[in-house]
Amino acid sequence: MLNKETIRDWFISLQQSICEQLEEADGRGKFISDAWDRPGGGGGVSRIITNGQVIEKGGVNFSAVWGKAPEHTLKMLKLNESSADFFATGVSIVIHPHSPKVPIIHMNVRYFEMSTGQYWFGGGIDLTPHYVVKEDAAYFHQQLKKACDQHHPSYYPEFKKWADDYFFIKHRQETRGVGGIFFDYLKEDEGISKEDRFKFVQAVGQSFAPIYTHFMRKNKDLLYGEKEKQWQYLRRGRYVEFNLVWDRGTKFGLETDGRTESILMSLPPQANWQYSHQPQPGSDEATTLELLKKDINWIS
Amino acid sequence: MLNKETIRDWFISLQQSICEQLEEADGRGKFISDAWDRPGGGGGVSRIITNGQVIEKGGVNFSAVWGKAPEHTLKMLKLNESSADFFATGVSIVIHPHSPKVPIIHMNVRYFEMSTGQYWFGGGIDLTPHYVVKEDAAYFHQQLKKACDQHHPSYYPEFKKWADDYFFIKHRQETRGVGGIFFDYLKEDEGISKEDRFKFVQAVGQSFAPIYTHFMRKNKDLLYGEKEKQWQYLRRGRYVEFNLVWDRGTKFGLETDGRTESILMSLPPQANWQYSHQPQPGSDEATTLELLKKDINWIS
Repeated sequence: MLNKETIRDWFISLQQSICEQLEEADGRGKFISDAWDRPGGGGGVSRIITNGQVIEKGGVNFSAVWGKAPEHTLKMLKLNESSADFFATGVSIVIHPHSPKVPIIHMNVRYFEMSTGQYWFGGGIDLTPHYVVKEDAAYFHQQLKKACDQHHPSYYPEFKKWADDYFFIKHRQETRGVGGIFFDYLKEDEGISKEDRFKFVQAVGQSFAPIYTHFMRKNKDLLYGEKEKQWQYLRRGRYVEFNLVWDRGTKFGLETDGRTESILMSLPPQANWQYSHQPQPGSDEATTLELLKKDINWIS
Repeated sequence: MLNKETIRDWFISLQQSICEQLEEADGRGKFISDAWDRPGGGGGVSRIITNGQVIEKGGVNFSAVWGKAPEHTLKMLKLNESSADFFATGVSIVIHPHSPKVPIIHMNVRYFEMSTGQYWFGGGIDLTPHYVVKEDAAYFHQQLKKACDQHHPSYYPEFKKWADDYFFIKHRQETRGVGGIFFDYLKEDEGISKEDRFKFVQAVGQSFAPIYTHFMRKNKDLLYGEKEKQWQYLRRGRYVEFNLVWDRGTKFGLETDGRTESILMSLPPQANWQYSHQPQPGSDEATTLELLKKDINWIS
């Protein structure tokens, strides 16, 4: 029987494995480890890398927390119990590279369980290139599709669309990047067992390091200059806007006294804002903006 | 009779007057003017200054917008009308200086009116020094107290406390800066006429330029180095966090399709984030953190 301890332990091993693969591909940066306790129950280990050869700032966080379920969770589950306990565990990653030619990446895999019996898996992975390169976006989506298709034919199309809708900066009418997959509330359902759901989540988690180290190795030596660097800072500004204004996990964490430094490890080392910045028509920057749209089929 | 056109016209003249005084104190920067229309009714003029001698990036925005009142406003006013019109006008300012020794400042004065008859004034002004200097904070609060006391003895103590509560970065348990005053829903009440409320709002608006140009002139030539600059970028990161996560005006604007570039003119030209940054014990940076607390009586 698949219990929460098994899932939690697998997330711990995933964190370790991803950190090792990222360190190897970076060649210089080393993760530091910062363990923390949650006053209401549980805790986590934030692993942070700074000033690598490729990675400027990144975090690979594990947490397993429990306690009294928040009001809004009881409401969402239509539970009449005046109190019930929750358990939540997962791994969250954001990597900001030095080079504007290497994309930002985010991944999250998580498991949630109530003392009243409900449980579900959730997660997602999305890529935010400072410059959108169609071939790179196609590679990214092909890898995700491969991981999805091995588990259910509806996963990729459904979760790709969900990612387009989720990773959307509404006040800019821009997607955060080239999307990816996003899923939530996956439980035993329609002939898919809890074990099968977990196997899918494991496949997503294991896909992260091979995908991102591919981009690290392939793009790290591409040339760029001051113009590209300035554009990167503006795009990182958009990343900040998405995370602080729209990202449900960030908002929920900050509003419910989550561990601030672990939640905000997703923010870039430096971000810039310029009033009404408009890229030159026809420039690579303008082309990128045109490709930050929903419903692009990157694979076709 | 004090009508909305009179109030709007006064805000227009306030914007002009503040821009002139800031340009004079800066000595180099000039405001550009960017007029915009709101699809649902009304519009505004954003005036933006960049790369002055003292000011690195700032905005002095005027707007007057109207149309169908949003659902949440009708609800807040307990109006049963399925539709009513609103009118809102005001001036909003944020100034980010080059020097970490010159504080960031924010001011907003506004007037809101419903077609069903309700109206109110709101506003506030608060100072965010990168390094808290008690004498500067005392000067700031003395000027605000003077403006308040000429209108009502309860204004300063009441609105000072409101500012402490409002300009608070909950997830950091830090105030944004040394506070100031914040007020809302001021209408004819307890013997204070609408005209008297407006006179108070005018006094707040007129206090802005003398207060800030005082700090510009006094602090612009103070020496600083790379350490102070890096600290400024981290403090600007906190400013971004407050504005995007907690500021009601920003959140409401972004969620209701306000004009994004005018709303986000408040963001700094550059902000940095470091994981779990801790200033050296006993340093000026550590002293500043200790003073970012509610309920400090700066004047005594």
